[in-house]
Amino acid sequence: MKQIVFLLVAAATVAGIIALTARASGQADETSSPTFEIKLFPGYRDWPVISVAHEAGANNDLRAVLGNDLAMKAYRKETLPFPDGTVIARLAWVYTSSEANDKVFDRPQSFVAGPAINVQFMVKDSKKYAGTAGWGFAQFKDGKPDPTAKLDTCFPCHQPAKAHDYVFTHYAP
Amino acid sequence: MKQIVFLLVAAATVAGIIALTARASGQADETSSPTFEIKLFPGYRDWPVISVAHEAGANNDLRAVLGNDLAMKAYRKETLPFPDGTVIARLAWVYTSSEANDKVFDRPQSFVAGPAINVQFMVKDSKKYAGTAGWGFAQFKDGKPDPTAKLDTCFPCHQPAKAHDYVFTHYAP
Repeated sequence: MKQIVFLLVAAATVAGIIALTARASGQADETSSPTFEIKLFPGYRDWPVISVAHEAGANNDLRAVLGNDLAMKAYRKETLPFPDGTVIARLAWVYTSSEANDKVFDRPQSFVAGPAINVQFMVKDSKKYAGTAGWGFAQFKDGKPDPTAKLDTCFPCHQPAKAHDYVFTHYAP
Repeated sequence: MKQIVFLLVAAATVAGIIALTARASGQADETSSPTFEIKLFPGYRDWPVISVAHEAGANNDLRAVLGNDLAMKAYRKETLPFPDGTVIARLAWVYTSSEANDKVFDRPQSFVAGPAINVQFMVKDSKKYAGTAGWGFAQFKDGKPDPTAKLDTCFPCHQPAKAHDYVFTHYAP
């Protein structure tokens, strides 16, 4: 009986620690993306284009990568590492065949942006995000933090781009 | 003999008319795209994104479609026809497989913007371009008017998009 009580108390303690950790890592604010405490940037949809891409495979998206003013300046001056305050936004839409456009050509060849998938951000703050080389990561869906985002996987996955300060996207001339 | 002289004079006259027409339609100014007399818009590279697309086939490009302030407002309010002063820019880059990005995944799936192909503009001026439903067309390559552009083919080709004021691109949410 004593053992069972001990186990129950231990389990409750562990659960409490997990809950506290979750709260400390940003869950408390429902408008912030958890873990890195990043809020949706006002006006990001009007930022200039860094580049565009098509991710096939499981992603199956068309994407635009946009930058705030500091990001654009750093890209154009080829400044590395990116300075604190840099924000890079990745907007993704479902890769969608366009029947309407294809009528112009003699075969299916036109693929356009369908429904929005999500918006991801990389935010440079060398102090706040010192543990991830200065980068914070966030994912929003329909204007709200996406609770399904596995943000702890972002930085490990960006390792191959270390030579470009962990950013995959290069500037499209 | 009289007939041959007449034909030569007639041919020369026709050639002269063609040459004059070409000059009148904008060939005189080397910084303007011919036919529609459109100059490269300063700052267009920083305009917001309307949408992105991938044209396969002979085009084989990734493209970003950007809009000036009037274009963005019209798109977001779904204003049709687009008002005078609307400018839509289509930037195209070579559709390029990214080996670097593919290393993150287990198969080739990442396609990015390679070298710039060209930049096209649609400019709304209902008086100046009355003959083409108010739209002027231009194509620039490396920042200069592209002499290889067949601008007289633009408007006929845009007919299938008549219901959307001859603009193929729709706004990506």
